[in-house]
Amino acid sequence: MRNIKVVIEYDGTHFCGWQWQPQEHVRTVQRELIGSLRKFLNEDVNIIAAGRTDSGVHALGQVFNFKTQSQLEPRRMVAAMNGTLPKDVRAVTAEDVPLDFNARFNAKKREYHYSISRRERAIGRQYSWCYLGKLNVDHIREASQYLLGECDCRSFCKASAAVAHHLTNIERIEWEEVNDYLILKVVANRFLHNMIRIIVGTMIEVGTGLISPVQFKKIVEDKDRRSAGYTAPAKGLCLVRVYY
Amino acid sequence: MRNIKVVIEYDGTHFCGWQWQPQEHVRTVQRELIGSLRKFLNEDVNIIAAGRTDSGVHALGQVFNFKTQSQLEPRRMVAAMNGTLPKDVRAVTAEDVPLDFNARFNAKKREYHYSISRRERAIGRQYSWCYLGKLNVDHIREASQYLLGECDCRSFCKASAAVAHHLTNIERIEWEEVNDYLILKVVANRFLHNMIRIIVGTMIEVGTGLISPVQFKKIVEDKDRRSAGYTAPAKGLCLVRVYY
Repeated sequence: MRNIKVVIEYDGTHFCGWQWQPQEHVRTVQRELIGSLRKFLNEDVNIIAAGRTDSGVHALGQVFNFKTQSQLEPRRMVAAMNGTLPKDVRAVTAEDVPLDFNARFNAKKREYHYSISRRERAIGRQYSWCYLGKLNVDHIREASQYLLGECDCRSFCKASAAVAHHLTNIERIEWEEVNDYLILKVVANRFLHNMIRIIVGTMIEVGTGLISPVQFKKIVEDKDRRSAGYTAPAKGLCLVRVYY
Repeated sequence: MRNIKVVIEYDGTHFCGWQWQPQEHVRTVQRELIGSLRKFLNEDVNIIAAGRTDSGVHALGQVFNFKTQSQLEPRRMVAAMNGTLPKDVRAVTAEDVPLDFNARFNAKKREYHYSISRRERAIGRQYSWCYLGKLNVDHIREASQYLLGECDCRSFCKASAAVAHHLTNIERIEWEEVNDYLILKVVANRFLHNMIRIIVGTMIEVGTGLISPVQFKKIVEDKDRRSAGYTAPAKGLCLVRVYY
């Protein structure tokens, strides 16, 4: 038995997220991958992802693992996957890992980017959310500092999410301005459901002046989803890297 | 009467090129723009583009102009266009120009980029051509120098193209390697039909070693389309900027 770790990239536009759904017509990344692996491995596979991305969310560096009896070389697995997968999912690398490696539980931290386009665009419109209003980026950066480090992110978690606790350790949170994009880059040990999209939706209100940086601090302290802003659209979000 | 110059961006994936076609079902950028302008200007318009891009070719900085009796402010025209155009065409800027300005004939030079992806990708796959073979980029750069300056590009022009002559003045031709992309950037006073795509197709053969840089020089001198290589796919090509 072998355990294979695979890095994949996908364009989430036409996917109902990562997670396999019982209904056959619901197109998910996991369903496509299972279908591809079964096709050339000729065995049943179970795959575990580092992060179960939502409908419409993209990935440049999603990671999953699966157990197999196959003797196929990893680089041939990459080629076989890319020969059987649809064009909006691509395998990047594959490698043998110890049998106890688990893509989800061994992940130390994850990096997500959220792209806001400050102008309308045709090229790449699938990968960013267009926001044309004026934004005070200094205020957004100031407010972001209240999330750094050990932080209870209950205010930025979908209210219905069933989790034991909401503590996250945000190691890096930065806003980069480049080529009429405003890009949020976050590295943390874990991400709660909709966390970045709610942070972005709330930060837009900080940027417009509706919420001051100090009021944002209060929102964090409230630990109540109702205190935060709306959930920004999925299309701006991308799982960029998983660290082990 | 006013003359308006507009910069637009489009994703060529689902377009049969720039040029209006009489058949209503043939989706072209010009047809969409005329439809949009007629809708909010309430008058017949005739639009002239700097470069008539082929089917599947993208544009970040295409320019066109049109005459109008409207009193609408240019920035409101941009908003009205973006309110009536499909999402894969976006107006970027609009401005009043002298009545004798012609987007095509007044263009001094144009800049095109051709993106070759050196690995398979899902994100942005619409905007590059994926070539996985090994390439000697130094040889490609060396061969490119034979195109610099005043150059008869008949070897790199669709054989059926009806043009008076094939002289072009290539001011800049560079290959940039970034993030697993190999990007050709060309600035010239004019571009012949399929010119960049034939140059790229031929350069791939230089990169693989099938053609040496010196043999490439011979191909240029041949002034015969049959001496050059194949035509690279449209999806890697983008009209980036027009200089006046």
